[in-house]
Amino acid sequence: MVRQDAAGCVAAYTGVRAASVALAAPLTPEDCQVQSMPDASPVKWHLAHVTWFFETFVLERFEDRFAPFDPAYRELFNSYYQSVGAQSPRPQRGLILRPTLAEVLAYRSQVDERMATLLAERGDDAGLAALATLGLHHEQQHQELILTDIQHALSLHRGRAPYARSRQAAARSAERMRWFGHDGGLVEHGHEAVLDGGFCFDNEAPRHRVWLEPFEIASRPVNNGEYAAFIDDGGYDQPCWWLAMGWDWVRAGQHRAPLYWRRDGARWRTHSLHGEVDLDPLAPVCHLSYFEADAFARWAGARLPTEAEWEKAARAAGGSEAGHFADSDDFLPWPSPAPTNGAPVQMFGDVWEWTASAYLPYPRFRPVPGAVGEYNGKFMCNQFVLRGGSCATPCGHVRASYRNFFPPEAQWQFSGLRLARDA
Amino acid sequence: MVRQDAAGCVAAYTGVRAASVALAAPLTPEDCQVQSMPDASPVKWHLAHVTWFFETFVLERFEDRFAPFDPAYRELFNSYYQSVGAQSPRPQRGLILRPTLAEVLAYRSQVDERMATLLAERGDDAGLAALATLGLHHEQQHQELILTDIQHALSLHRGRAPYARSRQAAARSAERMRWFGHDGGLVEHGHEAVLDGGFCFDNEAPRHRVWLEPFEIASRPVNNGEYAAFIDDGGYDQPCWWLAMGWDWVRAGQHRAPLYWRRDGARWRTHSLHGEVDLDPLAPVCHLSYFEADAFARWAGARLPTEAEWEKAARAAGGSEAGHFADSDDFLPWPSPAPTNGAPVQMFGDVWEWTASAYLPYPRFRPVPGAVGEYNGKFMCNQFVLRGGSCATPCGHVRASYRNFFPPEAQWQFSGLRLARDA
Amino acid sequence: MVRQDAAGCVAAYTGVRAASVALAAPLTPEDCQVQSMPDASPVKWHLAHVTWFFETFVLERFEDRFAPFDPAYRELFNSYYQSVGAQSPRPQRGLILRPTLAEVLAYRSQVDERMATLLAERGDDAGLAALATLGLHHEQQHQELILTDIQHALSLHRGRAPYARSRQAAARSAERMRWFGHDGGLVEHGHEAVLDGGFCFDNEAPRHRVWLEPFEIASRPVNNGEYAAFIDDGGYDQPCWWLAMGWDWVRAGQHRAPLYWRRDGARWRTHSLHGEVDLDPLAPVCHLSYFEADAFARWAGARLPTEAEWEKAARAAGGSEAGHFADSDDFLPWPSPAPTNGAPVQMFGDVWEWTASAYLPYPRFRPVPGAVGEYNGKFMCNQFVLRGGSCATPCGHVRASYRNFFPPEAQWQFSGLRLARDA
Amino acid sequence: MVRQDAAGCVAAYTGVRAASVALAAPLTPEDCQVQSMPDASPVKWHLAHVTWFFETFVLERFEDRFAPFDPAYRELFNSYYQSVGAQSPRPQRGLILRPTLAEVLAYRSQVDERMATLLAERGDDAGLAALATLGLHHEQQHQELILTDIQHALSLHRGRAPYARSRQAAARSAERMRWFGHDGGLVEHGHEAVLDGGFCFDNEAPRHRVWLEPFEIASRPVNNGEYAAFIDDGGYDQPCWWLAMGWDWVRAGQHRAPLYWRRDGARWRTHSLHGEVDLDPLAPVCHLSYFEADAFARWAGARLPTEAEWEKAARAAGGSEAGHFADSDDFLPWPSPAPTNGAPVQMFGDVWEWTASAYLPYPRFRPVPGAVGEYNGKFMCNQFVLRGGSCATPCGHVRASYRNFFPPEAQWQFSGLRLARDA
Repeated sequence: MVRQDAAGCVAAYTGVRAASVALAAPLTPEDCQVQSMPDASPVKWHLAHVTWFFETFVLERFEDRFAPFDPAYRELFNSYYQSVGAQSPRPQRGLILRPTLAEVLAYRSQVDERMATLLAERGDDAGLAALATLGLHHEQQHQELILTDIQHALSLHRGRAPYARSRQAAARSAERMRWFGHDGGLVEHGHEAVLDGGFCFDNEAPRHRVWLEPFEIASRPVNNGEYAAFIDDGGYDQPCWWLAMGWDWVRAGQHRAPLYWRRDGARWRTHSLHGEVDLDPLAPVCHLSYFEADAFARWAGARLPTEAEWEKAARAAGGSEAGHFADSDDFLPWPSPAPTNGAPVQMFGDVWEWTASAYLPYPRFRPVPGAVGEYNGKFMCNQFVLRGGSCATPCGHVRASYRNFFPPEAQWQFSGLRLARDA
Repeated sequence: MVRQDAAGCVAAYTGVRAASVALAAPLTPEDCQVQSMPDASPVKWHLAHVTWFFETFVLERFEDRFAPFDPAYRELFNSYYQSVGAQSPRPQRGLILRPTLAEVLAYRSQVDERMATLLAERGDDAGLAALATLGLHHEQQHQELILTDIQHALSLHRGRAPYARSRQAAARSAERMRWFGHDGGLVEHGHEAVLDGGFCFDNEAPRHRVWLEPFEIASRPVNNGEYAAFIDDGGYDQPCWWLAMGWDWVRAGQHRAPLYWRRDGARWRTHSLHGEVDLDPLAPVCHLSYFEADAFARWAGARLPTEAEWEKAARAAGGSEAGHFADSDDFLPWPSPAPTNGAPVQMFGDVWEWTASAYLPYPRFRPVPGAVGEYNGKFMCNQFVLRGGSCATPCGHVRASYRNFFPPEAQWQFSGLRLARDA
Repeated sequence: MVRQDAAGCVAAYTGVRAASVALAAPLTPEDCQVQSMPDASPVKWHLAHVTWFFETFVLERFEDRFAPFDPAYRELFNSYYQSVGAQSPRPQRGLILRPTLAEVLAYRSQVDERMATLLAERGDDAGLAALATLGLHHEQQHQELILTDIQHALSLHRGRAPYARSRQAAARSAERMRWFGHDGGLVEHGHEAVLDGGFCFDNEAPRHRVWLEPFEIASRPVNNGEYAAFIDDGGYDQPCWWLAMGWDWVRAGQHRAPLYWRRDGARWRTHSLHGEVDLDPLAPVCHLSYFEADAFARWAGARLPTEAEWEKAARAAGGSEAGHFADSDDFLPWPSPAPTNGAPVQMFGDVWEWTASAYLPYPRFRPVPGAVGEYNGKFMCNQFVLRGGSCATPCGHVRASYRNFFPPEAQWQFSGLRLARDA
Repeated sequence: MVRQDAAGCVAAYTGVRAASVALAAPLTPEDCQVQSMPDASPVKWHLAHVTWFFETFVLERFEDRFAPFDPAYRELFNSYYQSVGAQSPRPQRGLILRPTLAEVLAYRSQVDERMATLLAERGDDAGLAALATLGLHHEQQHQELILTDIQHALSLHRGRAPYARSRQAAARSAERMRWFGHDGGLVEHGHEAVLDGGFCFDNEAPRHRVWLEPFEIASRPVNNGEYAAFIDDGGYDQPCWWLAMGWDWVRAGQHRAPLYWRRDGARWRTHSLHGEVDLDPLAPVCHLSYFEADAFARWAGARLPTEAEWEKAARAAGGSEAGHFADSDDFLPWPSPAPTNGAPVQMFGDVWEWTASAYLPYPRFRPVPGAVGEYNGKFMCNQFVLRGGSCATPCGHVRASYRNFFPPEAQWQFSGLRLARDA
């Protein structure tokens, strides 16, 4: 929305907003209601919350004669913004029966009309444009969560109830993993906001210098076949590969494989948005916790890359255009293609890649002022950074400097890994 | 269904079954999906489970060429019958997304057709008739649970979302509580099955002798005004009125009033199936735990009646015909009328009455053979008996010997109390 | 202490008090400090609490110029008397480091001196005598708890750390179980206080009439060999024998045998106060939960007796004089002898016997006035009655009307069972 | 022990070992038994575990004809070394009654004799010397934990039970906080092992380069008076100062002040190893969680230093010789003196200083081979680094590169903070 005319603004807004509703189209009202675990949210809640974001942070500030669609929503659909006020308890989002799904869709329509009017009239207001843009990127994040959360909810019925039916054929290639070296040295890290003015979240800035030792990074993500070899080698039985907290997690949760995997005789099956499917040994392994990614890397004699290493490699490998994202409507990582032009593949899309970096502020980081300053900064504790986007990420959403973050035990995102090692 | 012709059988069956669907009519699919606490079940689950009961215990045994509607339902909708096999975890009934509500209604229709055929053909089979009758009484129990469970689910949105709108005017009378004496002695207790052959659950039999000391029982249930006086007197602040376990419950749950009560200035409001309403001081107090009923009685210088005392008084007071049950479509206890013909009022309907009796087997109790023997007997531990039915109980469902039972902390049933004392 | 002269009073007092200290003699200060689970208490705490009982309920009321030994003890060693004031949290009794064991013993000495003076001067005061007597019976209860609690604490080190070394030889007899019939009818139940004036707890009174159906009771408790046969028959794998709550308990706790049992090849070993020993197949089975006792009885085609049945049988079988109690210094149930004079054996001593009766007030039960009224009555919820005393009970402490009570999951007492059946 | 002759080795060993026993001298056997929370361990356990370390990692490998003191200790006193085998459950260390304290002291004596013999004979073996040295530094860490853990255990009895009585007078100075600037740039970070060969833990290495932006660091730690101002300003009521996880921690734990603080009218009191004392407003604030340190810094318009910033500042400020450590026998932070020679004060001793750095491996970090490789590396997850040592740290134990680490909620260490800010 930055540097667009009013019509472009409205079109961008309309496109992102419509995509959310389209994601809910295959679902019943019951599907949109449930919350299968505290970490996940109901689809209905996602649809309402992203609308609340526009109403609360844009309309309330910029609209003349602002009046809320429903005053009760201020608390019901506030996720975690303490500056805005109270929030309904996160683990009980699935108990919010009023509004119904139909009422939430009506809420969306009304807010969309008001936003369209506002953007047409005042889209050249820089503050408005910035917040509206933030709202769209925010909504795209929730589009990915809609997919990961409904996949989890449907996993109870793994044999039935696919969310999506059609599958797109993907190129296949049984390429061995190769290593690409980097010299290290003093590198620039973080979003190059000054250079091109493109959007980024506050946590990607400011750009700053980091000293790197020489390192090597793998040509592609670790795949299912390689991860299955770790399992077959007793990976989940040997504490030597695991962080202490990871080993406790393995035992307490009786974990024996990534989330959604089920052994069926000699083969592995996995629950997906297409229902249960055979695991493709050549596709990137997915639905790993940080603990699993870290343990695999140690078993493989390697390690996870730091986020600075990852970002440097990603910039060298080119942009995100070629990535496999959610617009494919596939929602399963694709087998790795062969590297071309001497650079790693699949840095963008397919699976988020756990890094070895704790999610912490960059030097001289400042949250944006106001309530939206709670967006990112206050979560910088006990989480790890993931990079690159996944097959459930909206196309165009990520970039080389994009920092996703989850606690080390989270598995339900499309999370995998790429190996690195000291040169 | 006992001693009916085939047409009568089918009509009885059809009537009870239709009543369940009618209860769900005001609800959205989302409403039918949620489980607001582990003790409650989703409406969709209730609708499916009672159908499962007929399919599993009647059709599977008596139908020629039996084939299940869906083999997965055997586990999904098994409540607690170990003899039948595994059960889906009780606290996660709200996560069962497949079948959808529409599919559950189709399941009901198919089973109803098969049952109608079977009853028309073989309704004179005593074993079939007994199990079908049990199934109907079972379904009536779940009809009450549908009401109590959806009331709880909607309580999060107390100001909105009424389940029912129309209210029936009820007679009012500010009668003071009076006492009716009984001589005690050796009394017959339990269902008089031998005499009239009417239906009873196995836990109401066998009829046996109990020695009673002389006692007095109150003319009517304790009402909201009386209970509010207990609160105003610091009832929830003084451990002397409470069982030790009850006092722990008060403090752990920060209980200050019955479930659903909310103080609004000088008056009390309560959540109900009509939304939030003023509490009627002359109506029986409702949604009490055993702990609260017992504490109130002690504060009032009285006690709860034993179930033998209650049953003796109820038989003296006449049958259940005059009671206020769910067919009134009101679902709120009505103010107590004046006693007529020298007997207590409201022994039946309005509110279940906690008794001082632990739920234990009667002497020489034998569960019925087969899986349905798990219906009642195995729950005879750490529960207390309630008597008389409520305004959410289907008309015709209860009788003097009927034993309901809940753990002492349960509040979400329509549970109140009647006082007793030693003569 | 009732109907004794002052010297007799002091002697009785001194004897009971000295016995508590003697029980702690084999233990180190560390042993006396630990609390191995919330249900158990440290020995040091027991020694202080029983002293607190005399100081708070006797000295504070009757002593001239009463001054507490230490004002902090009022809260530290108050178990559950709300009328007295706050209590230190039960699960953290093991964290009470001050006073030390030496200081607690000094506390005992000082209170003993004051009590001796008081009893010598005013032992003929009926109120004083009643409370002092209650205090001694209270202390005897804690003497048993000292043994059961330290046995549990030492069970972590089952191969080592015996509490007691010497063992007394016991007669052996491989008597088969026989049945003794009773006619039932209207019986007197509860303590015959009016007749002989002997001490009883308030929960044993008032004596009242109960109607019994004809029944039979087993000649002796179920023994280890019989219980092992239940295990070998898959008793812990078959839900049909268990109450629903019991089956949940089996699975949640992964119970496969009574507490302290350990399979060692073909034989069973058990932890005891003598360290680990072979289980004697002819000795009464011990350390059962109510769930286990109830399940065994169902498997055996019998049931548990009600407490009224048990009491009637116990009165017929003679008094408690012949029982095997804690004065034997053995603390392991002895093999059952042959019945003599046509009556059941081991009704008293060896193992507490779970009954089918919930722990509830007798008709017209009244707690004693004052704070000591909290002794028994407020626990009448979700517990079951046990009868007869055990090999850890002080000699002379129990009687036919004595009601012990524990929640159904409790295993760490010396709890077994005797079968009954309908005649 | 590095580069010492045999006599020096034995002397060093003997000195450290004797210091542990001396720390337990003021305690009763009961004191040494208890575990007041899962994070803490009993003093008896500490005394045994550090001995187990020498027996398992030194004697077992180097002693001829090695035989364990007691084979059961291998599991009982193994803290977390999976390579060595099973461990007794951490939260139940307080239940280990055997061995007794006396037996543990005998264990220590025997191992000390064997170690002295071994060191005298083979002290020039580099591998042996390295492991023995590691064992002594390990024991010093547990000496600090003995103090922090017993302080916590005694905090239940805050008014009584001091561990230590004598207090040493400390200089006072009401110096305002000043700022010292640093230019940033590429700095060397981590232990300079190559240069001087002194001991360090594996997590302090390898030395590597880090790019720093210009920053300023405070002249002294934040003191109690300043922290009290944060409280008085509503610091614990305003979510804006807190990390999201920190705010949840505040509410869930109802935190209103640092651990051990108690408001007494207008003043603050704190529990200490001297019993309860007045808080000195000029002494460094202590017993803060990371959440509290981070929130205070944000409130103060500053931030925590990174560990690289801290280390650079510490090296500039001089060594640890002047620090206030445990050898003062005071165990309370001393008021900050005025800065001399233009450098920050109290970088070493008094209080551990929380840094903004997650505890992660340095580039090219390699754990040491063998079981002792589990010492540090496997804990690099969800913890933050603290620097500088405290008044409970043994003198000579810390250095500029020393990395301590605790989860962000830990309060019971002597943990405070020093502010930093961007230049």
